[in-house]
Amino acid sequence: MTREEFSDAVELPVDTMAALERAAGSHRHEVLFSNRAFHIKQSAVRDVFDISIRPGLISLAGGSPYLRSLPLEELGRTAQRIIAEHGLEALQYGGGQGMEELRRQACEVMAAEGILDADPADIVITTGSQSAQDVAAKVFCDPGDVILCEDPTYVGALNAFEAYEVDVRTVPMDDGGLVPEALERRIREVRAEGKTIKLLYTIPSFNNPSGVTLTAGRRQAVVEICRRNNILILEDNPYGLLRFDGEPLAPMRAGNAQDVLYLGSFSKIFAPGVRLGWALVPRHLYRRFYLACEAVVLCPSPLTQMLVSAYLREYDWMGHVRSSRSLYAERCSSMLAALDEHMPEGVTWTRPDGGFFIWVTLPEGVDTYPLLYEAIDAGTVFIPGAAFTPGEGASNKLRLAFSAVSSEDIAEGVRRLAPILSAAVAAVKVR
Amino acid sequence: MTREEFSDAVELPVDTMAALERAAGSHRHEVLFSNRAFHIKQSAVRDVFDISIRPGLISLAGGSPYLRSLPLEELGRTAQRIIAEHGLEALQYGGGQGMEELRRQACEVMAAEGILDADPADIVITTGSQSAQDVAAKVFCDPGDVILCEDPTYVGALNAFEAYEVDVRTVPMDDGGLVPEALERRIREVRAEGKTIKLLYTIPSFNNPSGVTLTAGRRQAVVEICRRNNILILEDNPYGLLRFDGEPLAPMRAGNAQDVLYLGSFSKIFAPGVRLGWALVPRHLYRRFYLACEAVVLCPSPLTQMLVSAYLREYDWMGHVRSSRSLYAERCSSMLAALDEHMPEGVTWTRPDGGFFIWVTLPEGVDTYPLLYEAIDAGTVFIPGAAFTPGEGASNKLRLAFSAVSSEDIAEGVRRLAPILSAAVAAVKVR
Repeated sequence: MTREEFSDAVELPVDTMAALERAAGSHRHEVLFSNRAFHIKQSAVRDVFDISIRPGLISLAGGSPYLRSLPLEELGRTAQRIIAEHGLEALQYGGGQGMEELRRQACEVMAAEGILDADPADIVITTGSQSAQDVAAKVFCDPGDVILCEDPTYVGALNAFEAYEVDVRTVPMDDGGLVPEALERRIREVRAEGKTIKLLYTIPSFNNPSGVTLTAGRRQAVVEICRRNNILILEDNPYGLLRFDGEPLAPMRAGNAQDVLYLGSFSKIFAPGVRLGWALVPRHLYRRFYLACEAVVLCPSPLTQMLVSAYLREYDWMGHVRSSRSLYAERCSSMLAALDEHMPEGVTWTRPDGGFFIWVTLPEGVDTYPLLYEAIDAGTVFIPGAAFTPGEGASNKLRLAFSAVSSEDIAEGVRRLAPILSAAVAAVKVR
Repeated sequence: MTREEFSDAVELPVDTMAALERAAGSHRHEVLFSNRAFHIKQSAVRDVFDISIRPGLISLAGGSPYLRSLPLEELGRTAQRIIAEHGLEALQYGGGQGMEELRRQACEVMAAEGILDADPADIVITTGSQSAQDVAAKVFCDPGDVILCEDPTYVGALNAFEAYEVDVRTVPMDDGGLVPEALERRIREVRAEGKTIKLLYTIPSFNNPSGVTLTAGRRQAVVEICRRNNILILEDNPYGLLRFDGEPLAPMRAGNAQDVLYLGSFSKIFAPGVRLGWALVPRHLYRRFYLACEAVVLCPSPLTQMLVSAYLREYDWMGHVRSSRSLYAERCSSMLAALDEHMPEGVTWTRPDGGFFIWVTLPEGVDTYPLLYEAIDAGTVFIPGAAFTPGEGASNKLRLAFSAVSSEDIAEGVRRLAPILSAAVAAVKVR
């Protein structure tokens, strides 16, 4: 089952729309769509967003951060003060690059990860990392240009890239992340087709959906391969600070200012509802990137910028990151324990060192999309693996998120899922 | 002086960047830019954004709404309550279409303008109208496709459209707005070139920058011309409720649900800092438009959505609109009086019935771009007319905004501007 078929099949408001659209398929306006409009896909993650919030259902689908440990009462008072005392600034239009204080603070966040030379002048505050991914594809890719990415990779990035008719090609990973030799081979293959490769999109730390991390040793090798081949690296690092133990690995951007366009996010270290992230752009690429951001939203919200800025200035944000790490580590352990206990033979999974996700592999021949319906009936939900790969093939993988669910619910969710996966494994064995 | 030259000339942080970029023009990454990257321009409005906030300077440039009449103390307490009591929702990811309550409330706002049949299911909440303009160009326009627009039109829309390599063509206006016969003629001319026209982008009420309003009588004529020619209308109506006297004119969308993609904004009836607007999309076009919005930002900020929703639910928002109308009417009068008093012969201007702007025309042969520097030296600032027209020609027009400045400052700003315009008029007379 493909992503498109799935979107059409799941019962959702947008499904009704799809039906309406099909009914109106012969509408005279059909010819008005751009070519790229036909490349814009439904995100499987968003598909299950509405389902996930049904009462009683245990969602192992959405990669939502845990917010209950935020000091909501205090944050409320901070927001009150911002509007009461600085409302004329917070509620007005702001500058297109984002506020200078927040850009300085983004540099502090990056310094905690090992990027020590970031300059606020090279930063654009974006409407989440999603917006930066959209702008990157816009600024760098003509139709048919290639973006290389990990297999699997973030579905939202795939949707953003494919909306620009980008030809997204995957590079194999192993337990140590992107395989440098495989990257070189893929570059040669793609170029032999006469294609132009513009970007390598990578989530080197705790990849979404696989949880896999690119080893420290490979990071510089990947940068050098890309430099030699004149491919810009788009490094997406929303989870970098959420390493369960030890220091965060230095991002690829550290020490490679010219080679990497780095994307940061306040969603996982603070809160997604503010819809703010940032791009640290190589200086020679900054102006066009920044202008494209401005053409898309004029400016990021001054109100939410001021809230994030106050949070980073006045609260123990690093303390919150540390307690989040422990919490996610514990939940990850719970999920690994539940998988150990309940999964049938023939099913394997990753053991992440940080982030939000575990990637489960079923035997060849299993298609995880139809299993989703059975899971929903059984009271749990996951994201089928096909969502995280370009193209239309079936997938024997699935993503489980442990970030937003208690350890008890994680155990129960995996317990509910187990008989469905067992039956699917048994069915392919019989075949 | 063209828009690009202007951007390069004005002393701004981005100017430094332009210089850096030129210095790095031979960087190996230069070849990575997409074709569309070279169509992404600096907005003249944004150019003067930083200048406008210099102390002592009277800015007649930015179209910022007046926010001092908002109850900031109370709004602060509302924000506090939202975060303290509903923080887990406000700070988390939300649905891609936007919250249902806010979509219902957008229908109420539109009902106040005369759109009585809007359905919340046909609405997408967007990151300002700017984002909806970006998505419209993305979903409908291939490179070289034509969007028709008023001459002059909103610079932000021009920037959004041109970033997709859209061929933006203008249709002449008179005091009654778009001239239907001129529209038909332009459609024939453009088609004779073998071009495909996808959209008519129009700001029918109090056009930015001209302040001109499309007469009630012409509105249906324009809709019917577009329907006959299979051109979708993109109706941008941020100022519709800000008519100084009498009832708002019904938008073109009223009664034409199939023909018009309507863009609304909370920026002018509430506050731009929340970065929220909405698109009311013909049902047969909804799904692709919505998916494209989602691919760009995942979801609009739940936090700012809940703040706008609370404002529309708990405050006398229409009372605020009414008092804003009076205030803007008074400021517009002050500006008209100052223009009457100070402008030299040969200079003319529009007399708007609402909105934020007056459009000033100097004699043929005057280029208003270089006058901006003189104006800044004299302590005031405006937007040169060339910003509001596609292409690279000089313009003898300029935009003055009366929305964000007191009547006293308006009088003083126009007084400062007058000798500069007088000298420019005298210079072309001599020639």
